[in-house]
Amino acid sequence: VRYRARVEYDGTDFAGFQVQPRGRTVQGQLEAALRRVSGNRPIRVEAAGRTDAGVHAVGQVIAFTYHGRLATRELARALDGLLPPDIAVHSLRRVDRSFRPRYAALVREYRYTIWNGPRSPLRERYALGVRETLDVAAMARAARALIGRHDFSAFGGADRQPVRTVHAIRVRAAGPTITIDVVGDAFLRQMVRSIVAALLRVGRGETGARDVAAALAGSRRAFAGAVAPAHGLCLRRVVTARASRAASAQGNNGENRNE
Amino acid sequence: VRYRARVEYDGTDFAGFQVQPRGRTVQGQLEAALRRVSGNRPIRVEAAGRTDAGVHAVGQVIAFTYHGRLATRELARALDGLLPPDIAVHSLRRVDRSFRPRYAALVREYRYTIWNGPRSPLRERYALGVRETLDVAAMARAARALIGRHDFSAFGGADRQPVRTVHAIRVRAAGPTITIDVVGDAFLRQMVRSIVAALLRVGRGETGARDVAAALAGSRRAFAGAVAPAHGLCLRRVVTARASRAASAQGNNGENRNE
Repeated sequence: VRYRARVEYDGTDFAGFQVQPRGRTVQGQLEAALRRVSGNRPIRVEAAGRTDAGVHAVGQVIAFTYHGRLATRELARALDGLLPPDIAVHSLRRVDRSFRPRYAALVREYRYTIWNGPRSPLRERYALGVRETLDVAAMARAARALIGRHDFSAFGGADRQPVRTVHAIRVRAAGPTITIDVVGDAFLRQMVRSIVAALLRVGRGETGARDVAAALAGSRRAFAGAVAPAHGLCLRRVVTARASRAASAQGNNGENRNE
Repeated sequence: VRYRARVEYDGTDFAGFQVQPRGRTVQGQLEAALRRVSGNRPIRVEAAGRTDAGVHAVGQVIAFTYHGRLATRELARALDGLLPPDIAVHSLRRVDRSFRPRYAALVREYRYTIWNGPRSPLRERYALGVRETLDVAAMARAARALIGRHDFSAFGGADRQPVRTVHAIRVRAAGPTITIDVVGDAFLRQMVRSIVAALLRVGRGETGARDVAAALAGSRRAFAGAVAPAHGLCLRRVVTARASRAASAQGNNGENRNE
Protein backbone atom coordinates (compact mmCIF):
# COMPACT_ATOMS: atom_id res chain seq x y z
CA VAL A 1 0.00 0.00 0.00
CA ARG A 2 1.32 3.41 -0.94
CA TYR A 3 1.37 6.15 1.74
CA ARG A 4 1.86 9.89 1.63
CA ALA A 5 2.77 12.07 4.63
CA ARG A 6 3.81 15.58 5.48
CA VAL A 7 7.09 15.69 7.37
CA GLU A 8 8.42 18.40 9.70
CA TYR A 9 12.03 18.49 10.83
CA ASP A 10 14.60 20.68 12.54
CA GLY A 11 17.47 20.43 10.05
CA THR A 12 20.16 21.49 12.52
CA ASP A 13 21.45 18.02 13.32
CA PHE A 14 20.96 16.45 9.89
CA ALA A 15 23.36 16.07 6.98
CA GLY A 16 20.36 16.86 4.75
CA PHE A 17 17.34 14.85 3.66
CA GLN A 18 18.93 12.26 1.41
CA VAL A 19 20.72 9.15 2.72
CA GLN A 20 24.49 9.48 2.49
CA PRO A 21 27.42 7.17 3.17
CA ARG A 22 28.15 9.14 6.34
CA GLY A 23 26.04 11.42 8.50
CA ARG A 24 22.58 11.38 10.05
CA THR A 25 19.87 12.11 7.45
CA VAL A 26 16.11 12.61 7.56
CA GLN A 27 15.55 9.86 5.00
CA GLY A 28 17.80 7.54 7.01
CA GLN A 29 15.83 8.12 10.22
CA LEU A 30 12.47 7.68 8.46
CA GLU A 31 13.63 4.47 6.78
CA ALA A 32 15.03 3.11 10.06
CA ALA A 33 11.67 3.73 11.80
CA LEU A 34 9.75 2.10 8.92
CA ARG A 35 12.07 -0.87 8.99
CA ARG A 36 11.22 -1.42 12.63
CA VAL A 37 7.47 -1.45 11.98
CA SER A 38 7.77 -3.83 9.02
CA GLY A 39 9.67 -6.77 10.50
CA ASN A 40 13.08 -5.48 9.42
CA ARG A 41 12.08 -5.25 5.76
CA PRO A 42 13.77 -2.26 4.05
CA ILE A 43 11.32 0.46 2.90
CA ARG A 44 12.42 3.20 0.55
CA VAL A 45 11.24 6.76 1.36
CA GLU A 46 10.92 9.29 -1.47
CA ALA A 47 10.54 13.05 -0.96
CA ALA A 48 9.33 16.06 -2.92
CA GLY A 49 12.44 18.09 -2.10
CA ARG A 50 15.88 16.86 -1.14
CA THR A 51 16.77 19.59 1.33
CA ASP A 52 20.44 20.28 2.10
CA ALA A 53 22.23 19.90 5.43
CA GLY A 54 20.86 22.35 8.01
CA VAL A 55 17.69 23.24 6.07
CA HIS A 56 14.43 22.86 8.01
CA ALA A 57 10.99 21.74 6.82
CA VAL A 58 7.43 21.96 8.01
CA GLY A 59 5.84 20.89 4.72
CA GLN A 60 8.10 18.24 3.19
CA VAL A 61 6.05 15.57 1.42
CA ILE A 62 7.17 11.96 1.42
CA ALA A 63 5.83 8.67 0.09
CA PHE A 64 6.63 5.02 0.76
CA THR A 65 5.14 1.59 0.21
CA TYR A 66 4.21 -0.48 3.26
CA HIS A 67 2.61 -3.89 3.24
CA GLY A 68 2.59 -4.61 6.98
CA ARG A 69 -0.33 -5.32 9.27
CA LEU A 70 -0.79 -1.89 10.85
CA ALA A 71 -3.74 0.26 9.81
CA THR A 72 -3.01 3.87 8.84
CA ARG A 73 -3.72 5.29 12.27
CA GLU A 74 -1.64 2.65 14.06
CA LEU A 75 1.19 3.14 11.58
CA ALA A 76 1.16 6.91 12.26
CA ARG A 77 1.28 6.31 16.01
CA ALA A 78 4.08 3.76 15.71
CA LEU A 79 6.19 6.14 13.60
CA ASP A 80 5.52 8.94 16.08
CA GLY A 81 6.90 6.76 18.86
CA LEU A 82 9.96 5.58 16.91
CA LEU A 83 11.13 8.82 15.31
CA PRO A 84 13.61 11.11 17.10
CA PRO A 85 12.34 14.42 18.55
CA ASP A 86 13.61 16.42 15.55
CA ILE A 87 11.39 14.66 12.98
CA ALA A 88 7.59 14.39 12.99
CA VAL A 89 5.28 12.73 10.47
CA HIS A 90 1.84 14.32 9.99
CA SER A 91 -1.24 13.64 7.86
CA LEU A 92 -0.29 10.10 6.93
CA ARG A 93 -2.73 8.74 4.33
CA ARG A 94 -3.07 6.16 1.59
CA VAL A 95 -2.54 7.32 -1.97
CA ASP A 96 -2.53 5.88 -5.44
CA ARG A 97 0.31 3.39 -5.77
CA SER A 98 1.84 5.38 -8.62
CA PHE A 99 2.29 8.47 -6.38
CA ARG A 100 5.85 9.81 -6.47
CA PRO A 101 6.18 13.08 -4.53
CA ARG A 102 9.06 14.43 -6.59
CA TYR A 103 7.02 14.25 -9.80
CA ALA A 104 3.63 14.95 -8.26
CA ALA A 105 4.80 18.22 -6.69
CA LEU A 106 3.29 21.14 -8.60
CA VAL A 107 4.30 23.98 -6.30
CA ARG A 108 7.03 24.25 -3.68
CA GLU A 109 7.23 27.08 -1.18
CA TYR A 110 10.34 28.01 0.77
CA ARG A 111 10.79 30.70 3.41
CA TYR A 112 14.10 32.31 4.27
CA THR A 113 14.14 34.24 7.56
CA ILE A 114 16.54 37.04 8.44
CA TRP A 115 16.89 38.63 11.90
CA ASN A 116 18.02 42.17 11.09
CA GLY A 117 18.67 43.28 14.66
CA PRO A 118 21.25 43.00 17.44
CA ARG A 119 22.69 39.52 17.94
CA SER A 120 20.02 37.22 19.35
CA PRO A 121 20.89 33.57 20.10
CA LEU A 122 17.27 32.54 20.54
CA ARG A 123 16.13 34.08 17.23
CA GLU A 124 19.17 33.14 15.18
CA ARG A 125 18.67 29.42 15.48
CA TYR A 126 16.12 29.54 12.64
CA ALA A 127 17.07 32.89 11.09
CA LEU A 128 20.19 34.44 9.62
CA GLY A 129 21.45 37.28 11.84
CA VAL A 130 22.39 40.38 9.84
CA ARG A 131 23.72 43.42 11.72
CA GLU A 132 23.85 46.08 8.98
CA THR A 133 20.42 47.59 8.28
CA LEU A 134 19.06 46.10 5.05
CA ASP A 135 17.16 48.07 2.41
CA VAL A 136 14.08 45.85 2.26
CA ALA A 137 12.36 47.90 -0.46
CA ALA A 138 15.40 47.51 -2.74
CA MET A 139 15.44 43.76 -2.03
CA ALA A 140 11.76 43.50 -2.97
CA ARG A 141 12.39 45.44 -6.21
CA ALA A 142 15.33 43.23 -7.15
CA ALA A 143 13.28 40.11 -6.42
CA ARG A 144 10.70 41.07 -9.04
CA ALA A 145 13.20 40.49 -11.87
CA LEU A 146 13.40 36.82 -10.89
CA ILE A 147 9.68 36.08 -11.10
CA GLY A 148 8.63 34.08 -14.15
CA ARG A 149 9.98 31.28 -16.32
CA HIS A 150 13.76 31.58 -16.71
CA ASP A 151 16.98 29.67 -17.12
CA PHE A 152 18.19 29.87 -13.49
CA SER A 153 21.74 28.60 -14.14
CA ALA A 154 23.07 31.78 -12.57
CA PHE A 155 21.26 30.97 -9.30
CA GLY A 156 21.71 27.27 -8.67
CA GLY A 157 23.66 24.09 -9.14
CA ALA A 158 24.33 22.77 -12.65
CA ASP A 159 21.38 20.96 -14.21
CA ARG A 160 20.74 19.74 -17.76
CA GLN A 161 17.38 21.46 -17.75
CA PRO A 162 17.90 24.66 -15.72
CA VAL A 163 14.59 26.28 -16.66
CA ARG A 164 12.28 26.83 -13.70
CA THR A 165 9.21 28.94 -13.02
CA VAL A 166 9.19 31.21 -9.99
CA HIS A 167 5.57 32.13 -9.32
CA ALA A 168 6.24 34.67 -6.57
CA ILE A 169 8.94 36.11 -4.35
CA ARG A 170 7.68 38.12 -1.39
CA VAL A 171 10.12 40.12 0.70
CA ARG A 172 8.51 41.42 3.88
CA ALA A 173 9.70 43.06 7.08
CA ALA A 174 7.87 42.85 10.42
CA GLY A 175 10.07 44.80 12.81
CA PRO A 176 13.60 43.40 12.60
CA THR A 177 12.35 40.10 11.10
CA ILE A 178 12.62 39.91 7.31
CA THR A 179 11.06 36.96 5.48
CA ILE A 180 11.67 36.03 1.87
CA ASP A 181 9.05 33.62 0.54
CA VAL A 182 9.89 31.96 -2.75
CA VAL A 183 7.19 29.99 -4.54
CA GLY A 184 8.00 27.98 -7.66
CA ASP A 185 7.27 24.83 -9.61
CA ALA A 186 10.66 23.32 -8.78
CA PHE A 187 14.11 24.54 -7.77
CA LEU A 188 17.68 23.89 -8.81
CA ARG A 189 20.06 22.78 -6.07
CA GLN A 190 20.83 25.75 -3.73
CA MET A 191 18.60 27.99 -5.84
CA VAL A 192 16.68 29.64 -2.99
CA ARG A 193 19.85 30.26 -0.99
CA SER A 194 21.57 31.72 -4.09
CA ILE A 195 18.63 34.07 -4.67
CA VAL A 196 18.70 35.10 -0.99
CA ALA A 197 22.46 35.74 -1.16
CA ALA A 198 21.89 38.03 -4.17
CA LEU A 199 19.04 39.86 -2.41
CA LEU A 200 21.23 40.31 0.68
CA ARG A 201 23.85 41.99 -1.54
CA VAL A 202 21.14 44.32 -2.79
CA GLY A 203 19.91 44.98 0.76
CA ARG A 204 23.44 45.97 1.78
CA GLY A 205 23.80 48.26 -1.25
CA GLU A 206 26.62 46.17 -2.76
CA THR A 207 24.59 45.32 -5.86
CA GLY A 208 21.61 46.92 -7.58
CA ALA A 209 18.38 45.40 -8.79
CA ARG A 210 19.66 45.76 -12.35
CA ASP A 211 22.72 43.61 -11.61
CA VAL A 212 20.43 40.85 -10.37
CA ALA A 213 18.38 41.02 -13.57
CA ALA A 214 21.58 41.05 -15.64
CA ALA A 215 22.97 38.05 -13.73
CA LEU A 216 19.81 36.10 -14.50
CA ALA A 217 20.48 36.52 -18.23
CA GLY A 218 23.93 34.90 -17.86
CA SER A 219 24.51 31.18 -17.80
CA ARG A 220 27.22 31.16 -15.10
CA ARG A 221 26.78 31.24 -11.31
CA ALA A 222 26.19 34.86 -10.33
CA PHE A 223 27.98 36.70 -7.49
CA ALA A 224 30.73 34.07 -7.26
CA GLY A 225 28.21 31.37 -6.38
CA ALA A 226 27.43 32.87 -2.98
CA VAL A 227 24.69 31.06 -1.02
CA ALA A 228 22.96 32.19 2.18
CA PRO A 229 23.51 29.90 5.22
CA ALA A 230 21.22 26.85 5.48
CA HIS A 231 19.78 27.47 8.96
CA GLY A 232 17.57 30.38 7.78
CA LEU A 233 15.79 28.23 5.18
CA CYS A 234 12.61 26.21 5.64
CA LEU A 235 10.61 24.17 3.13
CA ARG A 236 7.14 25.38 4.06
CA ARG A 237 4.77 23.71 1.66
CA VAL A 238 4.56 21.29 -1.24
CA VAL A 239 1.37 21.16 -3.26
CA THR A 240 1.01 17.82 -5.01
CA ALA A 241 -1.39 16.91 -7.78
CA ARG A 242 -2.20 13.27 -7.66
CA ALA A 243 -2.15 12.74 -3.90
CA SER A 244 -5.08 15.10 -3.45
CA ARG A 245 -7.07 13.25 -6.08
CA ALA A 246 -6.29 9.92 -4.46
CA ALA A 247 -7.23 11.34 -1.08
CA SER A 248 -10.60 12.58 -2.24
CA ALA A 249 -11.28 9.21 -3.85
CA GLN A 250 -10.21 7.17 -0.81
CA GLY A 251 -11.02 9.54 2.02
CA ASN A 252 -8.38 10.60 4.48
CA ASN A 253 -7.77 10.31 8.19
CA GLY A 254 -8.82 13.89 8.92
CA GLU A 255 -5.37 14.98 9.98
CA ASN A 256 -4.46 16.95 6.89
CA ARG A 257 -6.50 20.08 7.49
CA ASN A 258 -3.53 22.30 6.79
CA GLU A 259 -2.74 20.93 3.37
CA VAL B 1 34.96 49.92 36.81
CA ARG B 2 31.70 48.08 37.41
CA TYR B 3 29.58 47.04 34.41
CA ARG B 4 26.05 45.80 34.02
CA ALA B 5 24.67 44.00 30.96
CA ARG B 6 21.62 42.13 29.78
CA VAL B 7 22.45 38.63 28.60
CA GLU B 8 20.52 36.42 26.19
CA TYR B 9 21.27 32.72 25.78
CA ASP B 10 19.94 29.53 24.29
CA GLY B 11 20.20 27.21 27.30
CA THR B 12 20.12 23.99 25.27
CA ASP B 13 23.84 23.32 25.30
CA PHE B 14 24.61 24.68 28.79
CA ALA B 15 24.82 22.91 32.14
CA GLY B 16 23.13 26.01 33.58
CA PHE B 17 24.32 29.53 34.34
CA GLN B 18 26.68 28.88 37.24
CA VAL B 19 30.23 27.58 36.82
CA GLN B 20 30.54 23.91 37.74
CA PRO B 21 33.38 21.44 38.04
CA ARG B 22 32.23 19.83 34.81
CA GLY B 23 30.08 21.04 31.91
CA ARG B 24 29.83 24.13 29.75
CA THR B 25 28.15 27.01 31.61
CA VAL B 26 27.04 30.53 30.69
CA GLN B 27 29.10 32.05 33.49
CA GLY B 28 32.10 30.03 32.35
CA GLN B 29 31.82 31.29 28.77
CA LEU B 30 31.34 34.90 29.88
CA GLU B 31 34.32 34.74 32.24
CA ALA B 32 36.50 33.13 29.55
CA ALA B 33 35.65 35.95 27.12
CA LEU B 34 36.33 38.62 29.78
CA ARG B 35 39.62 36.98 30.64
CA ARG B 36 40.69 37.33 27.03
CA VAL B 37 39.96 41.07 26.93
CA SER B 38 41.74 41.75 30.22
CA GLY B 39 45.20 40.28 29.62
CA ASN B 40 44.35 36.92 31.15
CA ARG B 41 43.22 38.43 34.46
CA PRO B 42 40.30 36.45 35.97
CA ILE B 43 37.03 38.41 36.16
CA ARG B 44 34.11 37.18 38.21
CA VAL B 45 30.63 37.44 36.64
CA GLU B 46 27.58 37.71 38.91
CA ALA B 47 24.00 37.19 37.75
CA ALA B 48 20.51 38.08 38.93
CA GLY B 49 19.23 34.52 38.42
CA ARG B 50 21.20 31.30 38.38
CA THR B 51 19.19 29.46 35.74
CA ASP B 52 19.32 25.66 35.61
CA ALA B 53 20.64 23.46 32.80
CA GLY B 54 18.55 23.88 29.64
CA VAL B 55 16.76 27.05 30.77
CA HIS B 56 16.93 29.97 28.30
CA ALA B 57 17.18 33.70 28.96
CA VAL B 58 16.59 36.90 27.06
CA GLY B 59 16.70 39.19 30.10
CA GLN B 60 19.34 37.81 32.43
CA VAL B 61 21.24 40.64 34.17
CA ILE B 62 24.93 40.30 34.96
CA ALA B 63 27.61 42.48 36.50
CA PHE B 64 31.41 42.36 36.57
CA THR B 65 34.35 44.59 37.36
CA TYR B 66 36.77 45.40 34.55
CA HIS B 67 39.80 47.67 34.79
CA GLY B 68 41.22 47.25 31.28
CA ARG B 69 41.83 49.83 28.60
CA LEU B 70 38.74 49.30 26.46
CA ALA B 71 35.95 51.87 26.53
CA THR B 72 32.40 50.59 27.04
CA ARG B 73 31.57 50.42 23.35
CA GLU B 74 34.83 48.66 22.47
CA LEU B 75 34.36 46.22 25.33
CA ALA B 76 30.85 45.39 24.09
CA ARG B 77 32.19 44.78 20.58
CA ALA B 78 35.07 42.65 21.82
CA LEU B 79 32.72 40.46 23.90
CA ASP B 80 30.38 40.13 20.94
CA GLY B 81 33.26 38.80 18.87
CA LEU B 82 34.55 36.41 21.55
CA LEU B 83 31.32 34.87 22.81
CA PRO B 84 29.88 31.69 21.22
CA PRO B 85 26.75 32.01 19.03
CA ASP B 86 24.46 30.85 21.84
CA ILE B 87 25.28 33.78 24.19
CA ALA B 88 24.87 37.50 23.48
CA VAL B 89 25.59 40.49 25.70
CA HIS B 90 23.36 43.56 25.25
CA SER B 91 23.09 47.02 26.80
CA LEU B 92 26.49 46.96 28.46
CA ARG B 93 26.88 50.03 30.67
CA ARG B 94 28.77 51.35 33.68
CA VAL B 95 27.05 51.18 37.03
CA ASP B 96 27.78 52.06 40.61
CA ARG B 97 30.60 49.87 41.92
CA SER B 98 28.38 48.45 44.65
CA PHE B 99 25.94 47.02 42.08
CA ARG B 100 25.23 43.32 42.66
CA PRO B 101 22.51 41.99 40.34
CA ARG B 102 21.31 39.30 42.69
CA TYR B 103 20.50 41.82 45.41
CA ALA B 104 19.53 44.70 43.13
CA ALA B 105 16.88 42.62 41.34
CA LEU B 106 13.43 43.78 42.42
CA VAL B 107 11.32 41.84 39.95
CA ARG B 108 12.03 38.71 37.91
CA GLU B 109 9.83 37.54 35.09
CA TYR B 110 9.85 34.01 33.67
CA ARG B 111 7.85 32.60 30.79
CA TYR B 112 7.01 28.93 30.34
CA THR B 113 5.82 27.96 26.86
CA ILE B 114 3.71 24.91 26.02
CA TRP B 115 2.90 23.71 22.50
CA ASN B 116 -0.48 22.01 22.93
CA GLY B 117 -0.77 20.57 19.45
CA PRO B 118 0.50 17.72 17.27
CA ARG B 119 4.21 16.94 17.63
CA SER B 120 6.24 19.78 16.09
CA PRO B 121 10.04 19.58 16.13
CA LEU B 122 10.49 23.23 15.18
CA ARG B 123 8.16 24.51 17.90
CA GLU B 124 9.22 22.10 20.63
CA ARG B 125 12.79 23.31 20.84
CA TYR B 126 11.67 26.20 23.08
CA ALA B 127 8.30 24.84 24.22
CA LEU B 128 7.07 21.73 26.01
CA GLY B 129 4.99 19.59 23.67
CA VAL B 130 1.77 18.36 25.28
CA ARG B 131 -0.56 16.16 23.23
CA GLU B 132 -3.65 15.94 25.49
CA THR B 133 -5.85 19.02 25.26
CA LEU B 134 -5.28 21.16 28.35
CA ASP B 135 -8.01 23.02 30.23
CA VAL B 136 -6.45 26.48 30.12
CA ALA B 137 -9.26 28.14 32.09
CA ALA B 138 -8.79 25.67 34.95
CA MET B 139 -5.03 26.28 34.88
CA ALA B 140 -5.60 30.05 35.11
CA ARG B 141 -7.98 29.58 38.04
CA ALA B 142 -5.51 27.35 39.91
CA ALA B 143 -2.72 29.85 39.29
CA ARG B 144 -4.61 32.57 41.16
CA ALA B 145 -4.17 30.73 44.48
CA LEU B 146 -0.40 31.15 44.17
CA ILE B 147 -0.38 34.92 43.75
CA GLY B 148 0.78 36.84 46.81
CA ARG B 149 3.30 36.45 49.63
CA HIS B 150 3.60 32.82 50.70
CA ASP B 151 5.93 30.17 52.01
CA PHE B 152 6.65 28.39 48.72
CA SER B 153 8.38 25.33 50.25
CA ALA B 154 5.83 23.12 48.48
CA PHE B 155 6.93 24.51 45.11
CA GLY B 156 10.70 24.73 45.17
CA GLY B 157 14.03 23.58 46.50
CA ALA B 158 14.75 23.78 50.24
CA ASP B 159 15.67 27.27 51.46
CA ARG B 160 16.06 28.72 54.94
CA GLN B 161 13.81 31.60 53.98
CA PRO B 162 11.22 30.11 51.66
CA VAL B 163 8.88 33.10 51.64
CA ARG B 164 8.52 34.73 48.23
CA THR B 165 6.07 37.14 46.64
CA VAL B 166 4.46 36.21 43.34
CA HIS B 167 3.07 39.40 41.84
CA ALA B 168 1.29 37.79 38.91
CA ILE B 169 0.79 34.52 37.07
CA ARG B 170 -0.79 34.85 33.65
CA VAL B 171 -1.90 31.73 31.77
CA ARG B 172 -2.81 32.50 28.17
CA ALA B 173 -3.57 30.49 25.04
CA ALA B 174 -3.04 31.77 21.50
CA GLY B 175 -4.08 28.87 19.31
CA PRO B 176 -2.15 25.79 20.43
CA THR B 177 0.53 27.91 22.15
CA ILE B 178 0.02 28.30 25.91
CA THR B 179 2.23 30.69 27.84
CA ILE B 180 2.55 30.88 31.60
CA ASP B 181 4.16 34.14 32.75
CA VAL B 182 5.27 34.21 36.36
CA VAL B 183 6.34 37.51 37.89
CA GLY B 184 7.83 37.67 41.36
CA ASP B 185 10.36 39.31 43.61
CA ALA B 186 12.58 36.22 43.71
CA PHE B 187 12.19 32.49 43.23
CA LEU B 188 13.25 29.34 45.03
CA ARG B 189 15.25 26.84 43.04
CA GLN B 190 12.98 25.09 40.45
CA MET B 191 10.01 27.14 41.71
CA VAL B 192 8.65 28.17 38.30
CA ARG B 193 8.99 24.67 36.90
CA SER B 194 7.28 23.21 40.00
CA ILE B 195 4.39 25.65 39.60
CA VAL B 196 4.12 24.77 35.90
CA ALA B 197 4.11 21.04 36.70
CA ALA B 198 1.24 21.60 39.14
CA LEU B 199 -0.70 23.68 36.59
CA LEU B 200 -0.15 20.99 33.95
CA ARG B 201 -1.74 18.46 36.32
CA VAL B 202 -4.71 20.79 36.65
CA GLY B 203 -4.85 21.26 32.86
CA ARG B 204 -5.01 17.49 32.41
CA GLY B 205 -7.74 17.14 35.05
CA GLU B 206 -5.52 15.12 37.40
CA THR B 207 -5.66 17.76 40.14
CA GLY B 208 -8.07 20.56 40.98
CA ALA B 209 -7.42 24.22 41.74
CA ARG B 210 -8.22 23.45 45.39
CA ASP B 211 -5.46 20.84 45.60
CA VAL B 212 -2.97 23.44 44.40
CA ALA B 213 -4.11 25.89 47.06
CA ALA B 214 -3.97 23.13 49.68
CA ALA B 215 -0.47 22.10 48.61
CA LEU B 216 0.71 25.69 49.04
CA ALA B 217 -0.28 25.54 52.70
CA GLY B 218 1.96 22.51 53.27
CA SER B 219 5.67 22.70 53.93
CA ARG B 220 6.68 19.64 51.83
CA ARG B 221 7.24 19.44 48.09
CA ALA B 222 3.85 19.09 46.44
CA PHE B 223 2.94 16.54 43.77
CA ALA B 224 6.00 14.39 44.50
CA GLY B 225 8.33 17.25 43.58
CA ALA B 226 7.40 17.13 39.89
CA VAL B 227 9.04 19.84 37.76
CA ALA B 228 8.28 20.75 34.14
CA PRO B 229 11.17 20.21 31.67
CA ALA B 230 13.76 22.99 31.44
CA HIS B 231 13.59 23.69 27.70
CA GLY B 232 10.18 25.41 27.92
CA LEU B 233 11.43 27.99 30.44
CA CYS B 234 12.93 31.40 29.69
CA LEU B 235 14.07 34.17 32.06
CA ARG B 236 12.47 37.10 30.26
CA ARG B 237 13.20 40.13 32.38
CA VAL B 238 14.93 41.31 35.53
CA VAL B 239 14.12 44.75 36.87
CA THR B 240 16.94 46.09 39.02
CA ALA B 241 16.83 49.05 41.35
CA ARG B 242 20.24 50.59 41.67
CA ALA B 243 21.48 50.00 38.13
CA SER B 244 18.77 52.24 36.73
CA ARG B 245 19.66 54.98 39.17
CA ALA B 246 23.34 54.67 38.29
CA ALA B 247 22.47 54.74 34.61
CA SER B 248 20.42 57.90 34.89
CA ALA B 249 23.23 59.53 36.83
CA GLN B 250 26.00 58.45 34.47
CA GLY B 251 24.14 58.22 31.18
CA ASN B 252 24.05 55.04 29.17
CA ASN B 253 25.17 53.90 25.77
CA GLY B 254 21.69 54.09 24.24
CA GLU B 255 21.38 50.36 23.76
CA ASN B 256 19.01 49.64 26.61
CA ARG B 257 15.75 50.81 25.11
CA ASN B 258 14.02 47.60 26.09
CA GLU B 259 14.88 47.74 29.75
